[in-house]
Amino acid sequence: MNAIAVDGKTIAEKLRGRIMNDVAHLQVEHNFTPGLAVVLVGKDPASSVYVRTKARQARAVGFKSQQFLLPSNVDEAELLKLIKTLNTDDSVDGILVQLPLPGHIDRWRVLEAIDPAKDVDGFHPYNIGRLAAGQPCLAPCTPLGVVHLIKSVARDLSGLDVVIIGRSNIVGKPLAVLLGDAGCTVTGAQLQTRNLPDICRKADIIVAAAGCAGLVRGDWIKLGAIVIDVGINRVFDSTGTEKLVGDVAFDEVRRRASYITPVPGGVGPMTVAYLLANTFKAAVSRRGLSSVTRHDVRHIESLSGASTDNVSVQFALDRAS
Amino acid sequence: MNAIAVDGKTIAEKLRGRIMNDVAHLQVEHNFTPGLAVVLVGKDPASSVYVRTKARQARAVGFKSQQFLLPSNVDEAELLKLIKTLNTDDSVDGILVQLPLPGHIDRWRVLEAIDPAKDVDGFHPYNIGRLAAGQPCLAPCTPLGVVHLIKSVARDLSGLDVVIIGRSNIVGKPLAVLLGDAGCTVTGAQLQTRNLPDICRKADIIVAAAGCAGLVRGDWIKLGAIVIDVGINRVFDSTGTEKLVGDVAFDEVRRRASYITPVPGGVGPMTVAYLLANTFKAAVSRRGLSSVTRHDVRHIESLSGASTDNVSVQFALDRAS
Repeated sequence: MNAIAVDGKTIAEKLRGRIMNDVAHLQVEHNFTPGLAVVLVGKDPASSVYVRTKARQARAVGFKSQQFLLPSNVDEAELLKLIKTLNTDDSVDGILVQLPLPGHIDRWRVLEAIDPAKDVDGFHPYNIGRLAAGQPCLAPCTPLGVVHLIKSVARDLSGLDVVIIGRSNIVGKPLAVLLGDAGCTVTGAQLQTRNLPDICRKADIIVAAAGCAGLVRGDWIKLGAIVIDVGINRVFDSTGTEKLVGDVAFDEVRRRASYITPVPGGVGPMTVAYLLANTFKAAVSRRGLSSVTRHDVRHIESLSGASTDNVSVQFALDRAS
Repeated sequence: MNAIAVDGKTIAEKLRGRIMNDVAHLQVEHNFTPGLAVVLVGKDPASSVYVRTKARQARAVGFKSQQFLLPSNVDEAELLKLIKTLNTDDSVDGILVQLPLPGHIDRWRVLEAIDPAKDVDGFHPYNIGRLAAGQPCLAPCTPLGVVHLIKSVARDLSGLDVVIIGRSNIVGKPLAVLLGDAGCTVTGAQLQTRNLPDICRKADIIVAAAGCAGLVRGDWIKLGAIVIDVGINRVFDSTGTEKLVGDVAFDEVRRRASYITPVPGGVGPMTVAYLLANTFKAAVSRRGLSSVTRHDVRHIESLSGASTDNVSVQFALDRAS
């Protein structure tokens, strides 16, 4: 079989379209515009690209977007002061501090300084804890995007066996919570896991988020499995050209999987789209716009269950046999 | 084979002995006594027994122990006011609100009202989030007790396959974090999990925390596995007498496991002992007693790695073959 590539770019575009409509609706009915503040410390090239992309897409859906670029040697105290200002600025609904931070700054002190109600990355322990406890919260963007992609090809996740490779705070751990809540049996694996290929061979869904180029091989895949590739690794090909590759050996794995996300163009665009969805959610929640909230949060919820692309996993598995 | 029963009662007693020594040390060197406040709403018989046990053991290790018994129809506002008072009372280091609460009270509003630094049950989202993120925190007592019991029979957990049955906020989910951090490959299963027996048959360690009497049967067990029974179920035997049983069919499972915890006398006593350990930890952390902290937190840490009873899992598995 040849897997269908899940087109994260197009799915993310649809999601942004819905958010754009909802923002227009907010402006007309409530006369306000959600605001996103992105903070970048230093000039790491990859981080700079991410921050520019986030700011551009925030403006494109109609948000007010602010960027704060601080020098790499900025005092932690100064960064904390900026966050405090943004916390109290009512025009700011979402605050994002781009990671990684320079070594002299305590990342956790910074993340915990952000008002949890404006923590659109979902990295504050309060949000992590609410997520783990099944309470309403701002959840991390990449796991939300991954669940959305899975739901775009599998209607009912209940009872499916999932293997997540990688236990990061940003992807693996919160994703295990979300997929467990959806009724999946989730195994949390790591690069060091004994018999990793064997464990993967039993999975209906494999999520590779270990940061290891080409880790997941074709013979690790149960026929018809869904494979989600969260890895973004920079490697050089034989001509010395840099390119982005995922954690999955795409050409091998697509021969056995039913669905597979490419890198780039799979999970990546979803992460940014969910940053926008979180900012919208924070804006309506913070302002207690219950009528809008009811309307729009349902929208946001329904965003996780994509509509037209839905097929059942049974179908995916049937395709395999 | 016949499994060795892991004697939680004795292990908990040792732990309480160490805490008692540490409390005496605090009193001599720093002239203060940790204080634990336990709040009970209503007169549920099981909850009343738990609260009395906790208060008695707190006094036995030398803590100041206070009980607050509120009527079952108490206003949520009044309960929140009591918690506020306890938060600001410097003689109180740990606050525990016994669950379940009556239906008219919002459990999460109450749990979130407790100062995270005094949250000795580890149920505040801030502590849940810090635990998930691998940051210092107050972790829930039962999972800490389970890890202690496992470490009392298995020196190195790294690479072991663990199946946890049950995804509660109190046991299953935080335990998955702790065992994942210890290097285990953790599968989170539930009563509804497809092929639950098959999944269990691959596990080096099974933790049953589903609240279902006798769920785990003998033929679910890999020869030599370690079986931890967190279930506490009240059932009636053939003579109509009520008795406590776990989630594990003990007599069948002991014939295949290498180690097994009994009910009662396994995990239960460890939960209360770790409530005391958490209260001690909260007391020294809150007061910034860094020298004591260094001394005693190491103690507390080392409590998780029991000493004399240690054997390697390889040994446990060897016994099986």
